[in-house]
Amino acid sequence: MSSPQQTITIAHLGPAGTYAETAAITYVEWLKQQIDQDKTALVLTTYPSIPQSLSAIAKHEAQLAVVPVENSIEGSVTYTLDTLWELDNLKIQHALVLPISHALLSDAQEIECIETVYSHPQALAQCQKWLEQHLPSAKLVPTNSTTEALVNLAGAPTTAAIASQRAAELYQLPVLAHPINDRADNCTRFWIIGHDHSHHGSYTSIAFTLPENKPGALVTVLQMFAQHQINLSRIESRPTKRSLGEYLFFIDLEADMTEPRVQKTLKALEQYTETLKIFGSYSVIPT
Amino acid sequence: MSSPQQTITIAHLGPAGTYAETAAITYVEWLKQQIDQDKTALVLTTYPSIPQSLSAIAKHEAQLAVVPVENSIEGSVTYTLDTLWELDNLKIQHALVLPISHALLSDAQEIECIETVYSHPQALAQCQKWLEQHLPSAKLVPTNSTTEALVNLAGAPTTAAIASQRAAELYQLPVLAHPINDRADNCTRFWIIGHDHSHHGSYTSIAFTLPENKPGALVTVLQMFAQHQINLSRIESRPTKRSLGEYLFFIDLEADMTEPRVQKTLKALEQYTETLKIFGSYSVIPT
Repeated sequence: MSSPQQTITIAHLGPAGTYAETAAITYVEWLKQQIDQDKTALVLTTYPSIPQSLSAIAKHEAQLAVVPVENSIEGSVTYTLDTLWELDNLKIQHALVLPISHALLSDAQEIECIETVYSHPQALAQCQKWLEQHLPSAKLVPTNSTTEALVNLAGAPTTAAIASQRAAELYQLPVLAHPINDRADNCTRFWIIGHDHSHHGSYTSIAFTLPENKPGALVTVLQMFAQHQINLSRIESRPTKRSLGEYLFFIDLEADMTEPRVQKTLKALEQYTETLKIFGSYSVIPT
Repeated sequence: MSSPQQTITIAHLGPAGTYAETAAITYVEWLKQQIDQDKTALVLTTYPSIPQSLSAIAKHEAQLAVVPVENSIEGSVTYTLDTLWELDNLKIQHALVLPISHALLSDAQEIECIETVYSHPQALAQCQKWLEQHLPSAKLVPTNSTTEALVNLAGAPTTAAIASQRAAELYQLPVLAHPINDRADNCTRFWIIGHDHSHHGSYTSIAFTLPENKPGALVTVLQMFAQHQINLSRIESRPTKRSLGEYLFFIDLEADMTEPRVQKTLKALEQYTETLKIFGSYSVIPT
Protein backbone atom coordinates (compact mmCIF):
# COMPACT_ATOMS: atom_id res chain seq x y z
CA MET A 1 0.00 0.00 0.00
CA SER A 2 1.41 3.40 -1.02
CA SER A 3 1.52 6.21 1.57
CA PRO A 4 -1.34 8.74 1.25
CA GLN A 5 -0.63 11.79 -0.91
CA GLN A 6 -3.00 14.07 0.98
CA THR A 7 -3.99 14.53 4.62
CA ILE A 8 -7.36 15.95 5.70
CA THR A 9 -7.17 17.22 9.29
CA ILE A 10 -10.53 17.40 11.09
CA ALA A 11 -10.81 19.65 14.18
CA HIS A 12 -13.29 19.02 17.01
CA LEU A 13 -13.86 19.86 20.68
CA GLY A 14 -11.71 17.66 22.91
CA PRO A 15 -10.38 15.90 24.86
CA ALA A 16 -11.16 12.48 23.34
CA GLY A 17 -14.58 11.15 24.36
CA THR A 18 -16.72 14.27 23.71
CA TYR A 19 -19.90 14.04 21.64
CA ALA A 20 -18.15 16.26 19.07
CA GLU A 21 -15.55 13.50 18.70
CA THR A 22 -18.28 10.88 18.18
CA ALA A 23 -19.79 13.15 15.50
CA ALA A 24 -16.33 13.55 13.89
CA ILE A 25 -15.80 9.75 13.89
CA THR A 26 -19.27 9.25 12.35
CA TYR A 27 -18.36 11.75 9.66
CA VAL A 28 -14.98 10.11 8.99
CA GLU A 29 -16.64 6.68 8.59
CA TRP A 30 -18.98 8.16 6.00
CA LEU A 31 -16.19 10.12 4.29
CA LYS A 32 -14.03 6.99 3.92
CA GLN A 33 -16.65 5.55 1.60
CA GLN A 34 -16.55 8.66 -0.60
CA ILE A 35 -12.79 8.99 -1.09
CA ASP A 36 -9.84 6.92 -2.22
CA GLN A 37 -8.34 5.91 1.11
CA ASP A 38 -5.00 4.99 -0.45
CA LYS A 39 -4.55 8.58 -1.51
CA THR A 40 -6.06 10.47 1.43
CA ALA A 41 -5.38 10.13 5.16
CA LEU A 42 -8.00 11.41 7.61
CA VAL A 43 -6.68 12.75 10.93
CA LEU A 44 -8.78 13.96 13.91
CA THR A 45 -7.37 16.78 16.09
CA THR A 46 -8.86 18.05 19.36
CA TYR A 47 -9.18 21.72 20.36
CA PRO A 48 -10.09 23.02 23.84
CA SER A 49 -13.09 25.05 22.63
CA ILE A 50 -15.59 25.30 19.77
CA PRO A 51 -14.33 28.76 18.63
CA GLN A 52 -10.78 27.33 18.51
CA SER A 53 -11.98 24.36 16.39
CA LEU A 54 -13.41 26.85 13.88
CA SER A 55 -10.40 29.20 14.02
CA ALA A 56 -8.23 26.18 13.15
CA ILE A 57 -9.84 26.11 9.67
CA ALA A 58 -9.59 29.88 9.26
CA LYS A 59 -5.85 29.57 10.04
CA HIS A 60 -5.55 26.50 7.74
CA GLU A 61 -4.29 24.32 10.62
CA ALA A 62 -7.20 22.01 9.77
CA GLN A 63 -9.25 21.49 6.60
CA LEU A 64 -12.53 20.68 8.37
CA ALA A 65 -14.16 21.21 11.78
CA VAL A 66 -17.08 19.28 13.25
CA VAL A 67 -19.09 21.59 15.54
CA PRO A 68 -22.45 21.28 17.35
CA VAL A 69 -25.17 23.68 16.07
CA GLU A 70 -28.23 22.91 18.14
CA ASN A 71 -29.56 20.39 20.59
CA SER A 72 -33.20 19.30 20.70
CA ILE A 73 -33.46 20.24 24.43
CA GLU A 74 -31.02 23.07 25.01
CA GLY A 75 -31.29 24.86 21.67
CA SER A 76 -28.59 26.68 19.73
CA VAL A 77 -24.92 26.39 20.51
CA THR A 78 -24.23 30.12 20.58
CA TYR A 79 -20.41 29.76 20.43
CA THR A 80 -20.75 28.08 17.03
CA LEU A 81 -23.13 30.70 15.59
CA ASP A 82 -21.16 33.69 16.95
CA THR A 83 -17.81 32.35 15.70
CA LEU A 84 -19.23 31.53 12.25
CA TRP A 85 -20.53 35.10 12.00
CA GLU A 86 -17.16 36.53 13.07
CA LEU A 87 -14.88 34.49 10.78
CA ASP A 88 -14.87 34.86 6.99
CA ASN A 89 -15.23 32.44 4.09
CA LEU A 90 -16.30 29.41 6.11
CA LYS A 91 -18.83 27.12 4.42
CA ILE A 92 -20.98 24.28 5.67
CA GLN A 93 -19.97 21.06 3.90
CA HIS A 94 -22.46 18.65 5.50
CA ALA A 95 -24.78 18.25 8.50
CA LEU A 96 -25.37 15.22 10.70
CA VAL A 97 -27.71 14.48 13.61
CA LEU A 98 -26.30 12.48 16.54
CA PRO A 99 -28.50 10.84 19.21
CA ILE A 100 -27.28 11.94 22.66
CA SER A 101 -27.40 9.36 25.45
CA HIS A 102 -25.86 10.40 28.76
CA ALA A 103 -24.37 8.06 31.37
CA LEU A 104 -23.50 8.65 35.04
CA LEU A 105 -19.84 7.68 35.53
CA SER A 106 -18.47 7.17 39.04
CA ASP A 107 -16.32 5.01 41.28
CA ALA A 108 -19.04 5.29 43.95
CA GLN A 109 -20.41 2.02 45.38
CA GLU A 110 -23.99 3.26 45.05
CA ILE A 111 -25.74 6.26 43.49
CA GLU A 112 -26.75 7.38 47.00
CA CYS A 113 -23.09 8.01 47.93
CA ILE A 114 -22.68 10.72 45.29
CA GLU A 115 -22.36 14.29 46.60
CA THR A 116 -21.04 16.14 43.51
CA VAL A 117 -21.80 15.76 39.81
CA TYR A 118 -19.52 17.32 37.18
CA SER A 119 -20.40 17.91 33.52
CA HIS A 120 -20.80 20.40 30.71
CA PRO A 121 -23.71 22.78 31.57
CA GLN A 122 -25.76 21.49 28.58
CA ALA A 123 -25.40 17.87 29.80
CA LEU A 124 -26.35 18.88 33.38
CA ALA A 125 -29.40 20.69 32.00
CA GLN A 126 -30.40 17.69 29.85
CA CYS A 127 -30.40 15.40 32.93
CA GLN A 128 -31.96 17.96 35.30
CA LYS A 129 -35.09 15.95 36.19
CA TRP A 130 -33.17 12.68 36.62
CA LEU A 131 -30.74 14.45 38.95
CA GLU A 132 -33.57 16.06 40.95
CA GLN A 133 -35.18 12.64 41.40
CA HIS A 134 -32.10 10.49 42.12
CA LEU A 135 -29.59 12.97 43.55
CA PRO A 136 -31.70 15.84 44.92
CA SER A 137 -28.99 17.18 47.23
CA ALA A 138 -25.96 16.69 44.96
CA LYS A 139 -23.92 19.75 44.04
CA LEU A 140 -23.85 20.29 40.27
CA VAL A 141 -20.54 21.64 38.98
CA PRO A 142 -20.11 22.85 35.37
CA THR A 143 -17.05 21.91 33.26
CA ASN A 144 -15.83 22.96 29.79
CA SER A 145 -16.69 19.59 28.20
CA THR A 146 -18.23 16.28 29.26
CA THR A 147 -14.78 14.67 29.05
CA GLU A 148 -13.13 17.35 31.18
CA ALA A 149 -15.60 16.40 33.94
CA LEU A 150 -13.86 13.01 34.24
CA VAL A 151 -10.64 14.38 35.80
CA ASN A 152 -12.65 14.99 38.98
CA LEU A 153 -13.45 11.30 39.48
CA ALA A 154 -9.98 9.91 40.26
CA GLY A 155 -9.77 8.78 43.89
CA ALA A 156 -13.03 10.55 44.78
CA PRO A 157 -15.80 7.97 45.40
CA THR A 158 -18.41 10.65 46.26
CA THR A 159 -18.13 12.37 42.87
CA ALA A 160 -19.71 11.51 39.53
CA ALA A 161 -19.57 12.85 35.98
CA ILE A 162 -22.11 12.90 33.16
CA ALA A 163 -20.56 11.83 29.86
CA SER A 164 -21.06 9.41 26.98
CA GLN A 165 -20.73 5.63 27.20
CA ARG A 166 -17.84 5.96 24.76
CA ALA A 167 -16.01 8.16 27.31
CA ALA A 168 -16.65 5.48 29.97
CA GLU A 169 -15.01 2.83 27.76
CA LEU A 170 -12.16 5.11 26.68
CA TYR A 171 -11.18 6.07 30.23
CA GLN A 172 -12.27 2.73 31.79
CA LEU A 173 -14.73 4.29 34.22
CA PRO A 174 -17.74 2.47 35.77
CA VAL A 175 -21.22 3.40 34.47
CA LEU A 176 -23.62 3.71 37.43
CA ALA A 177 -26.71 4.61 35.39
CA HIS A 178 -27.59 4.88 31.70
CA PRO A 179 -29.40 6.50 29.97
CA ILE A 180 -30.07 9.38 32.35
CA ASN A 181 -31.22 12.12 29.92
CA ASP A 182 -34.71 13.39 30.73
CA ARG A 183 -35.91 12.83 27.17
CA ALA A 184 -35.05 9.71 25.20
CA ASP A 185 -35.12 11.54 21.86
CA ASN A 186 -32.30 13.92 22.85
CA CYS A 187 -30.18 14.67 19.79
CA THR A 188 -27.68 17.25 18.54
CA ARG A 189 -27.19 18.56 15.03
CA PHE A 190 -23.58 19.08 13.94
CA TRP A 191 -22.17 20.98 10.99
CA ILE A 192 -19.01 19.99 9.15
CA ILE A 193 -17.33 23.29 8.26
CA GLY A 194 -14.59 23.94 5.71
CA HIS A 195 -13.51 26.18 2.83
CA ASP A 196 -14.97 24.21 -0.09
CA HIS A 197 -17.69 26.23 -1.89
CA SER A 198 -18.78 23.42 -4.21
CA HIS A 199 -21.15 21.46 -1.95
CA HIS A 200 -24.83 21.05 -2.71
CA GLY A 201 -27.83 19.66 -0.87
CA SER A 202 -31.33 20.24 0.37
CA TYR A 203 -30.33 22.87 2.96
CA THR A 204 -28.84 26.36 2.68
CA SER A 205 -27.84 28.43 5.72
CA ILE A 206 -27.47 32.20 5.85
CA ALA A 207 -27.07 34.94 8.47
CA PHE A 208 -27.71 38.68 8.20
CA THR A 209 -28.18 41.97 9.98
CA LEU A 210 -30.92 44.37 8.92
CA PRO A 211 -30.36 48.13 8.38
CA GLU A 212 -32.90 49.03 11.06
CA ASN A 213 -31.64 46.28 13.34
CA LYS A 214 -35.15 45.76 14.62
CA PRO A 215 -36.87 42.37 14.79
CA GLY A 216 -39.91 43.90 13.07
CA ALA A 217 -37.87 44.40 9.91
CA LEU A 218 -37.55 40.62 9.74
CA VAL A 219 -41.11 40.30 8.40
CA THR A 220 -40.10 41.72 4.97
CA VAL A 221 -37.35 39.11 4.64
CA LEU A 222 -39.59 36.23 5.76
CA GLN A 223 -42.26 37.32 3.27
CA MET A 224 -39.69 37.04 0.44
CA PHE A 225 -39.00 33.43 1.35
CA ALA A 226 -42.74 32.71 1.61
CA GLN A 227 -43.38 34.32 -1.82
CA HIS A 228 -40.79 32.02 -3.43
CA GLN A 229 -42.14 28.98 -1.57
CA ILE A 230 -38.91 28.42 0.28
CA ASN A 231 -39.52 26.63 3.57
CA LEU A 232 -37.50 27.67 6.59
CA SER A 233 -36.39 25.01 9.05
CA ARG A 234 -34.86 27.38 11.61
CA ILE A 235 -34.77 31.05 12.63
CA GLU A 236 -32.40 32.07 15.36
CA SER A 237 -31.60 35.56 16.62
CA ARG A 238 -28.28 36.51 18.20
CA PRO A 239 -27.20 39.88 19.62
CA THR A 240 -25.00 42.01 17.33
CA LYS A 241 -22.99 42.74 20.53
CA ARG A 242 -23.16 46.45 19.66
CA SER A 243 -26.14 47.35 21.83
CA LEU A 244 -29.02 45.65 23.62
CA GLY A 245 -31.95 45.12 21.24
CA GLU A 246 -29.87 44.85 18.03
CA TYR A 247 -29.89 41.39 16.50
CA LEU A 248 -28.53 39.31 13.68
CA PHE A 249 -30.53 36.42 12.31
CA PHE A 250 -29.50 32.89 11.32
CA ILE A 251 -31.90 31.19 8.90
CA ASP A 252 -31.83 27.65 7.47
CA LEU A 253 -33.63 27.24 4.13
CA GLU A 254 -34.97 23.92 2.85
CA ALA A 255 -33.55 24.40 -0.65
CA ASP A 256 -30.30 24.34 -2.61
CA MET A 257 -28.79 27.72 -3.45
CA THR A 258 -28.36 26.83 -7.13
CA GLU A 259 -32.17 26.68 -7.55
CA PRO A 260 -33.38 29.78 -9.46
CA ARG A 261 -35.96 30.70 -6.76
CA VAL A 262 -33.18 30.68 -4.12
CA GLN A 263 -30.77 32.62 -6.33
CA LYS A 264 -33.47 35.23 -6.94
CA THR A 265 -34.31 35.52 -3.23
CA LEU A 266 -30.68 35.77 -2.12
CA LYS A 267 -30.07 38.46 -4.76
CA ALA A 268 -33.07 40.45 -3.48
CA LEU A 269 -31.92 39.87 0.10
CA GLU A 270 -28.71 41.80 -0.59
CA GLN A 271 -30.78 44.96 -0.88
CA TYR A 272 -32.68 44.43 2.36
CA THR A 273 -29.81 43.35 4.58
CA GLU A 274 -26.93 45.33 6.06
CA THR A 275 -24.49 42.41 6.09
CA LEU A 276 -25.39 39.06 4.49
CA LYS A 277 -23.33 35.90 4.97
CA ILE A 278 -24.11 32.78 2.94
CA PHE A 279 -22.72 29.62 4.52
CA GLY A 280 -23.55 27.53 1.45
CA SER A 281 -25.69 24.50 0.65
CA TYR A 282 -25.22 21.04 2.13
CA SER A 283 -26.82 17.66 2.60
CA VAL A 284 -27.48 15.75 5.81
CA ILE A 285 -25.38 12.60 5.94
CA PRO A 286 -27.13 9.44 7.18
CA THR A 287 -26.31 8.36 10.77
CA MET B 1 -42.42 53.32 64.00
CA SER B 2 -44.98 50.51 63.77
CA SER B 3 -43.88 47.08 62.50
CA PRO B 4 -44.74 46.41 58.86
CA GLN B 5 -48.06 44.67 58.17
CA GLN B 6 -46.89 43.01 54.98
CA THR B 7 -43.66 41.42 53.75
CA ILE B 8 -42.69 41.21 50.07
CA THR B 9 -40.06 38.52 49.55
CA ILE B 10 -37.93 38.95 46.41
CA ALA B 11 -36.06 35.91 45.05
CA HIS B 12 -32.84 36.16 43.03
CA LEU B 13 -29.81 34.07 42.02
CA GLY B 14 -27.28 33.93 44.85
CA PRO B 15 -25.05 33.88 46.78
CA ALA B 16 -24.87 37.59 47.66
CA GLY B 17 -22.78 39.60 45.20
CA THR B 18 -24.28 38.33 41.90
CA TYR B 19 -25.46 40.77 39.24
CA ALA B 20 -28.98 39.44 39.89
CA GLU B 21 -28.63 40.71 43.46
CA THR B 22 -27.51 44.14 42.20
CA ALA B 23 -30.59 44.18 39.94
CA ALA B 24 -32.81 43.15 42.88
CA ILE B 25 -31.32 45.93 45.06
CA THR B 26 -31.86 48.48 42.25
CA TYR B 27 -35.47 47.32 42.02
CA VAL B 28 -35.99 47.51 45.80
CA GLU B 29 -34.62 51.10 45.88
CA TRP B 30 -37.13 52.07 43.21
CA LEU B 31 -39.99 50.13 44.85
CA LYS B 32 -39.39 51.87 48.21
CA GLN B 33 -40.40 55.14 46.59
CA GLN B 34 -43.67 53.63 45.36
CA ILE B 35 -44.90 52.02 48.58
CA ASP B 36 -45.60 52.94 52.19
CA GLN B 37 -42.45 51.62 53.87
CA ASP B 38 -44.05 51.64 57.30
CA LYS B 39 -46.58 49.09 56.13
CA THR B 40 -44.45 46.92 53.85
CA ALA B 41 -41.11 45.23 54.49
CA LEU B 42 -39.00 44.21 51.48
CA VAL B 43 -36.83 41.10 51.94
CA LEU B 44 -34.30 39.68 49.44
CA THR B 45 -33.79 35.89 49.34
CA THR B 46 -31.13 34.02 47.34
CA TYR B 47 -31.70 30.82 45.37
CA PRO B 48 -28.97 28.59 43.86
CA SER B 49 -30.37 28.79 40.30
CA ILE B 50 -32.58 30.91 38.06
CA PRO B 51 -35.25 28.17 37.66
CA GLN B 52 -35.39 27.87 41.47
CA SER B 53 -35.84 31.67 41.81
CA LEU B 54 -38.86 31.43 39.49
CA SER B 55 -40.23 28.25 41.11
CA ALA B 56 -40.15 30.13 44.44
CA ILE B 57 -42.93 32.42 43.14
CA ALA B 58 -44.92 29.53 41.67
CA LYS B 59 -44.76 27.85 45.13
CA HIS B 60 -45.59 31.19 46.86
CA GLU B 61 -42.34 31.10 48.87
CA ALA B 62 -41.62 34.52 47.33
CA GLN B 63 -43.85 37.22 45.85
CA LEU B 64 -41.37 38.42 43.23
CA ALA B 65 -38.26 37.14 41.43
CA VAL B 66 -35.62 39.22 39.66
CA VAL B 67 -34.19 37.20 36.74
CA PRO B 68 -31.85 38.04 33.81
CA VAL B 69 -33.50 37.84 30.37
CA GLU B 70 -30.79 38.78 27.92
CA ASN B 71 -27.31 40.22 27.79
CA SER B 72 -26.12 42.55 25.03
CA ILE B 73 -23.15 40.24 24.25
CA GLU B 74 -24.24 36.74 25.13
CA GLY B 75 -27.91 36.93 24.19
CA SER B 76 -30.87 35.26 25.83
CA VAL B 77 -30.71 33.60 29.21
CA THR B 78 -32.32 30.34 28.14
CA TYR B 79 -32.97 29.11 31.71
CA THR B 80 -35.26 32.10 32.28
CA LEU B 81 -37.21 31.65 29.03
CA ASP B 82 -37.59 27.87 29.39
CA THR B 83 -38.74 28.09 33.02
CA LEU B 84 -41.24 30.88 32.24
CA TRP B 85 -42.72 28.72 29.48
CA GLU B 86 -42.94 25.72 31.80
CA LEU B 87 -44.54 27.41 34.83
CA ASP B 88 -48.07 28.81 34.79
CA ASN B 89 -49.59 32.19 35.64
CA LEU B 90 -46.34 34.11 36.00
CA LYS B 91 -46.44 37.74 34.84
CA ILE B 92 -43.77 40.31 34.15
CA GLN B 93 -44.20 43.24 36.56
CA HIS B 94 -41.30 45.45 35.38
CA ALA B 95 -38.06 45.38 33.41
CA LEU B 96 -34.74 47.03 34.17
CA VAL B 97 -31.41 47.28 32.34
CA LEU B 98 -28.23 46.96 34.39
CA PRO B 99 -24.77 47.95 33.09
CA ILE B 100 -22.37 45.02 33.58
CA SER B 101 -18.81 45.86 34.55
CA HIS B 102 -16.54 42.91 35.34
CA ALA B 103 -13.51 42.96 37.65
CA LEU B 104 -10.64 40.49 38.04
CA LEU B 105 -10.46 39.52 41.73
CA SER B 106 -7.37 37.75 43.07
CA ASP B 107 -4.83 37.55 45.91
CA ALA B 108 -2.08 37.27 43.26
CA GLN B 109 0.77 39.79 43.47
CA GLU B 110 0.61 40.44 39.73
CA ILE B 111 -1.72 39.51 36.87
CA GLU B 112 1.14 37.47 35.35
CA CYS B 113 1.06 35.02 38.30
CA ILE B 114 -2.50 33.89 37.52
CA GLU B 115 -2.87 30.36 36.15
CA THR B 116 -6.62 29.73 36.58
CA VAL B 117 -9.64 32.01 36.20
CA TYR B 118 -13.03 31.01 37.62
CA SER B 119 -16.38 32.56 36.68
CA HIS B 120 -19.87 32.03 35.27
CA PRO B 121 -19.56 30.97 31.58
CA GLN B 122 -21.33 34.18 30.44
CA ALA B 123 -18.80 36.34 32.34
CA LEU B 124 -15.86 34.34 30.94
CA ALA B 125 -17.29 34.80 27.45
CA GLN B 126 -17.78 38.55 27.98
CA CYS B 127 -14.09 38.96 28.92
CA GLN B 128 -12.75 36.53 26.29
CA LYS B 129 -10.57 39.02 24.38
CA TRP B 130 -9.18 40.62 27.55
CA LEU B 131 -8.26 37.15 28.86
CA GLU B 132 -6.64 36.16 25.54
CA GLN B 133 -4.53 39.33 25.64
CA HIS B 134 -3.55 39.43 29.32
CA LEU B 135 -3.75 35.78 30.40
CA PRO B 136 -3.34 33.78 27.17
CA SER B 137 -2.31 30.55 28.91
CA ALA B 138 -4.67 30.69 31.91
CA LYS B 139 -7.12 27.84 32.36
CA LEU B 140 -10.73 29.08 32.32
CA VAL B 141 -13.04 27.22 34.69
CA PRO B 142 -16.84 27.71 34.64
CA THR B 143 -18.88 28.12 37.85
CA ASN B 144 -22.63 28.36 38.58
CA SER B 145 -22.50 32.08 39.40
CA THR B 146 -19.90 34.86 39.48
CA THR B 147 -20.03 34.79 43.29
CA GLU B 148 -19.53 31.03 43.48
CA ALA B 149 -16.25 31.56 41.62
CA LEU B 150 -14.87 33.39 44.69
CA VAL B 151 -14.63 30.27 46.89
CA ASN B 152 -11.68 29.19 44.73
CA LEU B 153 -9.56 32.22 45.67
CA ALA B 154 -8.91 31.52 49.36
CA GLY B 155 -5.25 30.68 49.93
CA ALA B 156 -4.60 30.25 46.20
CA PRO B 157 -2.49 33.15 44.88
CA THR B 158 -2.37 31.72 41.32
CA THR B 159 -6.16 31.78 40.90
CA ALA B 160 -8.51 34.62 40.00
CA ALA B 161 -12.25 35.10 39.62
CA ILE B 162 -14.33 37.39 37.41
CA ALA B 163 -17.11 39.08 39.40
CA SER B 164 -18.57 42.49 40.14
CA GLN B 165 -16.88 45.25 42.14
CA ARG B 166 -19.70 44.88 44.64
CA ALA B 167 -18.66 41.24 45.20
CA ALA B 168 -15.05 42.41 45.75
CA GLU B 169 -16.23 44.82 48.47
CA LEU B 170 -18.64 42.33 50.02
CA TYR B 171 -16.04 39.56 50.35
CA GLN B 172 -13.08 41.95 50.83
CA LEU B 173 -11.11 40.66 47.86
CA PRO B 174 -8.46 42.65 45.95
CA VAL B 175 -9.39 43.94 42.47
CA LEU B 176 -6.43 43.37 40.10
CA ALA B 177 -8.09 44.86 37.02
CA HIS B 178 -11.34 46.67 36.22
CA PRO B 179 -13.24 46.91 33.92
CA ILE B 180 -12.17 43.85 31.94
CA ASN B 181 -15.26 43.26 29.76
CA ASP B 182 -14.45 43.33 26.03
CA ARG B 183 -17.18 45.88 25.35
CA ALA B 184 -17.80 48.87 27.58
CA ASP B 185 -21.52 48.95 26.77
CA ASN B 186 -22.12 45.47 28.18
CA CYS B 187 -25.55 45.36 29.84
CA THR B 188 -28.17 42.87 30.95
CA ARG B 189 -31.94 43.20 30.91
CA PHE B 190 -33.77 41.78 33.92
CA TRP B 191 -37.45 41.02 34.41
CA ILE B 192 -39.24 41.31 37.73
CA ILE B 193 -41.71 38.40 37.76
CA GLY B 194 -44.74 37.90 40.01
CA HIS B 195 -48.42 36.98 40.07
CA ASP B 196 -49.94 40.46 39.73
CA HIS B 197 -51.90 40.81 36.44
CA SER B 198 -52.63 44.53 36.83
CA HIS B 199 -49.36 46.05 35.53
CA HIS B 200 -49.21 48.24 32.45
CA GLY B 201 -46.47 49.74 30.36
CA SER B 202 -44.99 50.18 26.93
CA TYR B 203 -43.93 46.52 26.56
CA THR B 204 -45.90 43.28 26.31
CA SER B 205 -44.24 39.86 26.17
CA ILE B 206 -45.75 36.68 24.79
CA ALA B 207 -44.63 33.17 23.82
CA PHE B 208 -46.30 30.60 21.59
CA THR B 209 -46.00 27.39 19.63
CA LEU B 210 -47.47 27.12 16.13
CA PRO B 211 -49.60 24.17 14.94
CA GLU B 212 -47.15 23.30 12.15
CA ASN B 213 -44.19 23.92 14.45
CA LYS B 214 -42.22 25.20 11.51
CA PRO B 215 -40.36 28.52 11.52
CA GLY B 216 -41.97 29.36 8.16
CA ALA B 217 -45.37 29.54 9.87
CA LEU B 218 -44.00 32.47 11.88
CA VAL B 219 -44.42 34.83 8.90
CA THR B 220 -48.24 34.82 9.28
CA VAL B 221 -47.93 35.88 12.91
CA LEU B 222 -45.35 38.57 12.18
CA GLN B 223 -47.54 39.95 9.39
CA MET B 224 -50.41 40.38 11.89
CA PHE B 225 -48.22 42.54 14.10
CA ALA B 226 -47.03 44.53 11.09
CA GLN B 227 -50.63 45.07 9.92
CA HIS B 228 -51.58 46.53 13.30
CA GLN B 229 -48.41 48.67 13.41
CA ILE B 230 -47.10 46.93 16.49
CA ASN B 231 -43.31 47.11 16.63
CA LEU B 232 -41.41 44.10 17.88
CA SER B 233 -38.32 44.62 19.99
CA ARG B 234 -37.30 40.96 20.20
CA ILE B 235 -37.93 37.58 18.58
CA GLU B 236 -36.33 34.54 20.16
CA SER B 237 -36.81 30.89 19.25
CA ARG B 238 -36.38 28.05 21.73
CA PRO B 239 -36.71 24.30 21.13
CA THR B 240 -40.04 22.73 22.19
CA LYS B 241 -37.84 19.88 23.55
CA ARG B 242 -40.12 17.41 21.76
CA SER B 243 -38.03 16.96 18.63
CA LEU B 244 -35.22 18.69 16.76
CA GLY B 245 -36.61 21.39 14.46
CA GLU B 246 -39.73 22.19 16.55
CA TYR B 247 -39.64 25.63 18.14
CA LEU B 248 -41.55 27.97 20.39
CA PHE B 249 -41.19 31.71 19.96
CA PHE B 250 -40.80 34.51 22.49
CA ILE B 251 -41.82 37.94 21.21
CA ASP B 252 -41.64 41.35 22.91
CA LEU B 253 -44.13 43.94 21.60
CA GLU B 254 -43.65 47.68 21.95
CA ALA B 255 -47.22 48.30 23.11
CA ASP B 256 -49.54 47.87 26.09
CA MET B 257 -51.94 44.96 25.94
CA THR B 258 -54.93 47.12 26.85
CA GLU B 259 -54.57 49.02 23.54
CA PRO B 260 -57.35 47.94 21.13
CA ARG B 261 -54.86 47.07 18.32
CA VAL B 262 -52.98 44.75 20.71
CA GLN B 263 -56.20 43.20 22.06
CA LYS B 264 -57.34 42.53 18.50
CA THR B 265 -54.01 40.99 17.49
CA LEU B 266 -53.77 38.78 20.59
CA LYS B 267 -57.36 37.59 19.99
CA ALA B 268 -56.50 36.69 16.40
CA LEU B 269 -53.27 35.05 17.55
CA GLU B 270 -55.26 32.51 19.57
CA GLN B 271 -56.47 31.02 16.29
CA TYR B 272 -53.01 30.76 14.75
CA THR B 273 -51.10 29.41 17.72
CA GLU B 274 -51.13 25.98 19.34
CA THR B 275 -50.32 27.26 22.85
CA LEU B 276 -50.19 31.01 23.60
CA LYS B 277 -48.81 32.43 26.84
CA ILE B 278 -49.18 36.13 27.63
CA PHE B 279 -46.71 37.34 30.23
CA GLY B 280 -48.42 40.71 30.54
CA SER B 281 -47.49 44.35 30.02
CA TYR B 282 -44.83 46.22 31.95
CA SER B 283 -42.72 49.35 32.03
CA VAL B 284 -38.93 49.69 32.20
CA ILE B 285 -37.89 51.24 35.50
CA PRO B 286 -35.17 53.91 35.32
CA THR B 287 -31.67 52.81 36.42
